This record gives sequence, C-alpha cells and structure tokens, in this order.
Amino acid sequence: MTDFPIDDLRFDDNGLVPAVVQDVHTHEVLMIGFMNRDAVLRTAREGRVCFWSRSRQKFWVKGETSGMFLETRAIRVNCENNSLLVLAEPIGPTCHTGHASCYFREADPNAENGWREIAPVITPPEDLYG
Amino acid sequence: MTDFPIDDLRFDDNGLVPAVVQDVHTHEVLMIGFMNRDAVLRTAREGRVCFWSRSRQKFWVKGETSGMFLETRAIRVNCENNSLLVLAEPIGPTCHTGHASCYFREADPNAENGWREIAPVITPPEDLYG
Repeated sequence: MTDFPIDDLRFDDNGLVPAVVQDVHTHEVLMIGFMNRDAVLRTAREGRVCFWSRSRQKFWVKGETSGMFLETRAIRVNCENNSLLVLAEPIGPTCHTGHASCYFREADPNAENGWREIAPVITPPEDLYG
Repeated sequence: MTDFPIDDLRFDDNGLVPAVVQDVHTHEVLMIGFMNRDAVLRTAREGRVCFWSRSRQKFWVKGETSGMFLETRAIRVNCENNSLLVLAEPIGPTCHTGHASCYFREADPNAENGWREIAPVITPPEDLYG
C-alpha cells in the first residue's frame, strides 16, 4: 500500500481527521483516534495504526508500549473525505484496561453508576504493561 | 434511557466528542460525527442519532432531510470518556450517496484513482432526496 491517495483527504483546521479502528475479523469497533497527514501515511505504509496524540502533540503508534499493535489491513474513507475507517488485526487487547475494545461500557439506567460493563478483560493490565 | 450519565463525558476544547455509529445488526461502521452535550442527550433521550454540525454550527438529526434516521439502540463510551460508540438501527442508507455506509471506498493502489468502491448503492440518491 505505497500509493495511498493522501491528497484526497480533507483535514480539519488542526490538520487532523478522526479515524475509527475496527477489528477486521470480529468487526468490533476498537477505538477512535485522530491522525494528521503523516500519521495516515505511516498507518498505510508501515502497516501499523499510528495516531497523532492531541494531548502529547506527538505520533502515537498504538501498541508502542504494550506491544499490542493494530496491524493495518485496509483503509476506507467516508463520502466527505474527512474521516477514516481502518480495518485492523489487533495483536491483543486494544484497550489499556485489557479489554478487547475501548468501548466496554454501555449506558444503562439500571446500572449503579449509569454504565454497565459489557465485555471481559482479556489480558490483565499488569501483564500488558508489567 | 432517561438517566444518561452525561456528566461523565469529557468534551474537547470545542465542547465536542467524536461519535461513531455502527449498525446494531450488521456491525457495519456507518459514519462518524461530532456531538456536543445536548446532541448526546438528544441521541439518548429522543432515540434518534443527533450530531452537532461543525460546519453549520447547528444540531443535525441524521435523516432529518431524507427520512433515513438512525434509531439509537445503545450508547457506549470509551475508556477515556472522550468518545462514543452508538449502536443504531438505520431506517435506510446512511450515506447521502445511497450507500449503506459512508465508508464505501477503500484505498487500493491498483484502482485508477487510488480508491476502490467496495459496496453498492442501496437506494439511488434521487429517491432519497427527490
């Protein structure tokens, strides 16, 4: 995937597009992040999902600390050319909590604090970051 | 869903969170939009996905023009409390092009313009917007 059509993308005023990552096998939505132009190109060319961290103002290769990389399998663009859907193969849990997906809580008026956990921890966080 | 735990959400400097909408049945990622506090509450309470349009600076109930609403089935939050995954039942095509999903083009170095269409038009746009 060396000829990624980067010039077609419309980045926002901060030079970013939102990118949602979906598990290519289970179709689970794993996370959302933001990418600048170079993060998109790295995601396409290096084969691992790379975001631009807005809080740290630096590249953030997902999994660089835990080893739980998201391997790029396909990159789709929306009709407006201003957001991406990345299909990826996760090496392990995407969430730093050890859940497969960062979206492991669902709003539920019957839950004590308003959220119900809907998915288990796959790998304990201490094994991810030990 | 009247007791949505809105105060748990962490909105960005513009008062927004990105929200990805996934088809509750097919698990297809349909679109990404941004929501402010009131758009999240409307999505939860009124049962239809409502965004905040950054370009028009107004509420945008998805489907308000075409009738192709996204009916809210569940709202999930990520580990950082700063993005949402909305599971929805689409009344019809989500994309204004008539595709089920806005992500109907995939980067492909072998495609003429760099993008390959991977999904068909479900309803011709002229039937959506007459």
